[in-house]
Amino acid sequence: MQPNAGLRSTPIAAVVLTNGDVDAIAGLLTLRERQAFSVLTTPAVHAVLDDNPIFEVLSRAIVARQPIMLDVPCAIRLPDGRPSGLSVTLFAVPGKIPLYLEQPDRTPALQETDQTVGAAVSDGHATLFYIPSCAAMTPALATRLHGADAVFFDGTLWSDDEMIRAGLGPKSGLRMGHMSVSGPEGALAAFEGIDVRRRVLLHINNSNPILLDDSPERAQAEAAGWSVAYDGMELTL
Amino acid sequence: MQPNAGLRSTPIAAVVLTNGDVDAIAGLLTLRERQAFSVLTTPAVHAVLDDNPIFEVLSRAIVARQPIMLDVPCAIRLPDGRPSGLSVTLFAVPGKIPLYLEQPDRTPALQETDQTVGAAVSDGHATLFYIPSCAAMTPALATRLHGADAVFFDGTLWSDDEMIRAGLGPKSGLRMGHMSVSGPEGALAAFEGIDVRRRVLLHINNSNPILLDDSPERAQAEAAGWSVAYDGMELTL
Repeated sequence: MQPNAGLRSTPIAAVVLTNGDVDAIAGLLTLRERQAFSVLTTPAVHAVLDDNPIFEVLSRAIVARQPIMLDVPCAIRLPDGRPSGLSVTLFAVPGKIPLYLEQPDRTPALQETDQTVGAAVSDGHATLFYIPSCAAMTPALATRLHGADAVFFDGTLWSDDEMIRAGLGPKSGLRMGHMSVSGPEGALAAFEGIDVRRRVLLHINNSNPILLDDSPERAQAEAAGWSVAYDGMELTL
Repeated sequence: MQPNAGLRSTPIAAVVLTNGDVDAIAGLLTLRERQAFSVLTTPAVHAVLDDNPIFEVLSRAIVARQPIMLDVPCAIRLPDGRPSGLSVTLFAVPGKIPLYLEQPDRTPALQETDQTVGAAVSDGHATLFYIPSCAAMTPALATRLHGADAVFFDGTLWSDDEMIRAGLGPKSGLRMGHMSVSGPEGALAAFEGIDVRRRVLLHINNSNPILLDDSPERAQAEAAGWSVAYDGMELTL
């Protein structure tokens, strides 16, 4: 995409945050200083930003911090106040607090709060769901997703113990707040009865074999109707 | 460089921070989680990290935060405790507090404190200075640098008003805590009487014409004995 105006502008009008973990929020630091846009997220995630003075580099005079209540659609506006034509609705999904807010040696509870949310983005016709972190499929979430035009969903790990088996760390997927892609409780199985036109896995850990084009796991995901997100991916609904 | 051990290790044994601004500290977030290394910096810059809970993602059980007093050489150790053979000495240079700690509508004072420092790295034979942010050459700094094997020095702007003239922002170089490369008070002039074997400009803003291989400004810097840093640069002293 092209800059929208000026020597250092970007086409980004709004940034929607779905949790307060480093991979969700640190990118704000590269948008810093004098680009007008809005940061839209829940009060809990705004509190994380507020608690870290480094994010003041996004001047509050230029970058609006807009809290969004769960389950209430919010119209996204352009920096000049005009409507963008898009709205976003945030909703709680099973998850945990950010890693760096965990207490040492204590396993954080899985919970459904405004610390970890999914986003439904709509132009009034089509709706796209973006859920990069989700510890379990609940009946309420399945109902919400039914009939969606597209869902981007947590594809962190293929199997719950894959980090441990690879010697990459002591944590299971669930301990990190992620349901796996495979298995009876995994995403492929969970979406079997849900009517979703486009299904895309994202937020994929480098231990997950679906990253490889020619892996059996990739073939299994594609056979179940999923594709795997990649940098620069564009989707037309 | 290659990983030193394990699937996700890096060859980085220590990170030395010279100020608390975003471009100096945000890179820590990409080294996160379970890589053993030390963060060496002044108490003032450690306080910046301490004040931002997001840096707790660098587990304190694994990543040591080691305060260094100004002007006291500190031996750099490997994560396993063995000596690296290198020592670092931090020293105050004229500068300002980090941008995101500035008060709105107040110009921060230029000062010489442990908020903005240079680093002298030595193996006992050769000494390399790393000074990415410096608002002025003082007699004390000139004396310190005399006889250095190499100096990496603040090359942010070619001229003090270049951001303003380009329409990139309202601030002069000095307002941002940087002396310019050119001009009677600039780096080229300031180093004329200082005996330094290798002189390298770094921390170069994208408005600075020395970034262009074929610019007259690059030719002028090279004629004065300077080179321009680039990604992947290696130096043998």
